[in-house]
Amino acid sequence: MVRWEPNARGRLQQAAFELFTERGFEQVTVAEIAERAGLTERTFFRYFADKREVFFSGSEVLRELMLSGVASAPPGTPPIEAIAAALDAAGTMFDGHVASARRRSAIIAAHAELRERELIKLAGLAAALAGVLRARGVSDPAAALTAEAGIAVFKVAFERWTAEPDGPELTQLMRAALGELKAVAAGR
Amino acid sequence: MVRWEPNARGRLQQAAFELFTERGFEQVTVAEIAERAGLTERTFFRYFADKREVFFSGSEVLRELMLSGVASAPPGTPPIEAIAAALDAAGTMFDGHVASARRRSAIIAAHAELRERELIKLAGLAAALAGVLRARGVSDPAAALTAEAGIAVFKVAFERWTAEPDGPELTQLMRAALGELKAVAAGR
Repeated sequence: MVRWEPNARGRLQQAAFELFTERGFEQVTVAEIAERAGLTERTFFRYFADKREVFFSGSEVLRELMLSGVASAPPGTPPIEAIAAALDAAGTMFDGHVASARRRSAIIAAHAELRERELIKLAGLAAALAGVLRARGVSDPAAALTAEAGIAVFKVAFERWTAEPDGPELTQLMRAALGELKAVAAGR
Repeated sequence: MVRWEPNARGRLQQAAFELFTERGFEQVTVAEIAERAGLTERTFFRYFADKREVFFSGSEVLRELMLSGVASAPPGTPPIEAIAAALDAAGTMFDGHVASARRRSAIIAAHAELRERELIKLAGLAAALAGVLRARGVSDPAAALTAEAGIAVFKVAFERWTAEPDGPELTQLMRAALGELKAVAAGR
């Protein structure tokens, strides 16, 4: 019998971030995270494959949101506007949560293995977005380039968002960055 | 006294790629690479920090070429055209060498740790390009976005180049991809 623990995932994440911030990512064990959360190690591994995954458990949700964003764009929507819809969909997940995003980013920035994992996740996201664009009839290299451009906008806006926690929300920053990318591409 | 070995770096890389292709990246030791190249392990470590670095020894050259490409663009050049100059400069390093690039890409694609290392190198390259654009007076987020767009063009064109070894050269593919990115950003 598995005992149901209310919000176990959230409690484990909260405990992990606290411990990583206090003592550094390498120094913290899964057993300590579970203990701080008032849960067992076994429960931890029901939710996360390893210590690093605590940082990336949201990436599946992000992926689903962005892919649905593209899919929901009306047929004939120019690829860049389909990607804009994906970015708007991503924004709904983050807006209002800059404090936790900022804490997470600070830990990732300090650890090469977490930065690498994040880049792999983003590269996978770009590949998935290119795939749904192709399924909508966008040819290559346009599909791949539009997807990569979307991820570039996401990355640049996300960095600014977490760097300026009292600034605009992520959705607004992504819209501004996409507009800026269009201007840059037009040679301005 | 260090004995001078003619083209030691090239011989080690050649030996490493042969062994990785024959037996897989994980199965090959530095001692075996050195032996195949007719050199010592000690010589290997004069050129490469570890086994993975064999794949990335060109990244410093690439970085220098691209940064110089941006720096050589006349003042007032639009940022995207400065990045185009960087891509042209990068092309001079690769054009005519598709066979070895293809072999290298196949090995990297098969190993998560090599893919991660490659993504980190490209992210560092994007950050460096953004830095030289800023030094030319380009503000953010335009500087970061233009740099990321340039790396996206490089990645997408590079993949196509190694996938179609009898196709156009990398420089030509990068120019086509940049044109495509401009068209996409214009909503076409």
